Amino acid sequence: MATVPTFSLDEATAVLSRTPAALDALLRGLSDLWVRGREGDDTWSPFDIVGHLIAGERTDWMPRVRIIMDGGESRPFDPFDRFAQSREPRDRSLGQLLDEFGRLRRANLAELEALKLRDGDLVRRGLHPSLGVVTLSELLATWTVHDLTHVHQLSRVMAYQYRSAVGPWSKYLGVLKCAGHSEP
Amino acid sequence: MATVPTFSLDEATAVLSRTPAALDALLRGLSDLWVRGREGDDTWSPFDIVGHLIAGERTDWMPRVRIIMDGGESRPFDPFDRFAQSREPRDRSLGQLLDEFGRLRRANLAELEALKLRDGDLVRRGLHPSLGVVTLSELLATWTVHDLTHVHQLSRVMAYQYRSAVGPWSKYLGVLKCAGHSEP
Repeated sequence: MATVPTFSLDEATAVLSRTPAALDALLRGLSDLWVRGREGDDTWSPFDIVGHLIAGERTDWMPRVRIIMDGGESRPFDPFDRFAQSREPRDRSLGQLLDEFGRLRRANLAELEALKLRDGDLVRRGLHPSLGVVTLSELLATWTVHDLTHVHQLSRVMAYQYRSAVGPWSKYLGVLKCAGHSEP
Repeated sequence: MATVPTFSLDEATAVLSRTPAALDALLRGLSDLWVRGREGDDTWSPFDIVGHLIAGERTDWMPRVRIIMDGGESRPFDPFDRFAQSREPRDRSLGQLLDEFGRLRRANLAELEALKLRDGDLVRRGLHPSLGVVTLSELLATWTVHDLTHVHQLSRVMAYQYRSAVGPWSKYLGVLKCAGHSEP
């Protein structure tokens, strides 16, 4: 049986359970500069990022867990729609999005816990539409790091709004040199 | 009089006041993998990062504000000691550090508010030991972006612990491609 190095279900869900409260503490009540500010055309604001996290909770992470548990590689995952949030109503407030993200995440983690996964389940395989064969532990680790990649992006987008305001200190501020790293 | 584009004292302090709770929500109670994990020798763990933020509260940000308000460019700031946290006792818990960071930040923001700064104060000048002349608004914007640069770093350090666990998904996860960007 394959080993699952460095992955622990408890450690992954410890991070996943904390992300909604962390984003809430960071963002709720901030002005439009911070919430709606972007890095240019076709880039995401913190508002867009929270919308993207909601879309993932609704249509990607747990549905993919279920596909692996129910059928393994017999049918591929549905592709992740990275732009689902752009079709949501624009008149919702950030507070409403944060509430919804927290609610969906709690429900998804409750469902995950109810599966009572064992170590042997973590090596179950699924079929990603472009990456090919992946394992359940890789899916759960990716859910976790996906949260972190968007905390990383969000701090960069916020810092960008003050890129001029910091004056000569910009050379010491690594976040202002981060160009984003995701492949499409 | 010089203008202060894009900087607002209210918007800066809105972020500064939220950082302790955001880090608390993100980190408190996590295991050593997330709290003490680093990216290699001579790099910082989340524990080290919170220690560094505490050092800034104690010896850098408000002391520099006071130097500008009291004497302007007549004496340079003391250099920022980026390694002060490495001389702190190692047996403190992350919870103790988070408590201290929150307490110091609240006290510093109360002191800042008590100065009742006006727009005209924001263009006051100070002398940075290596950057030369800077303004009070640049100092306050840098305090803000410094928080964000360490949220950015912290999410990257945490993600690094799962760089293998995500398997082939690593190509989609920008945070795993961030090499850090700070100059020494």
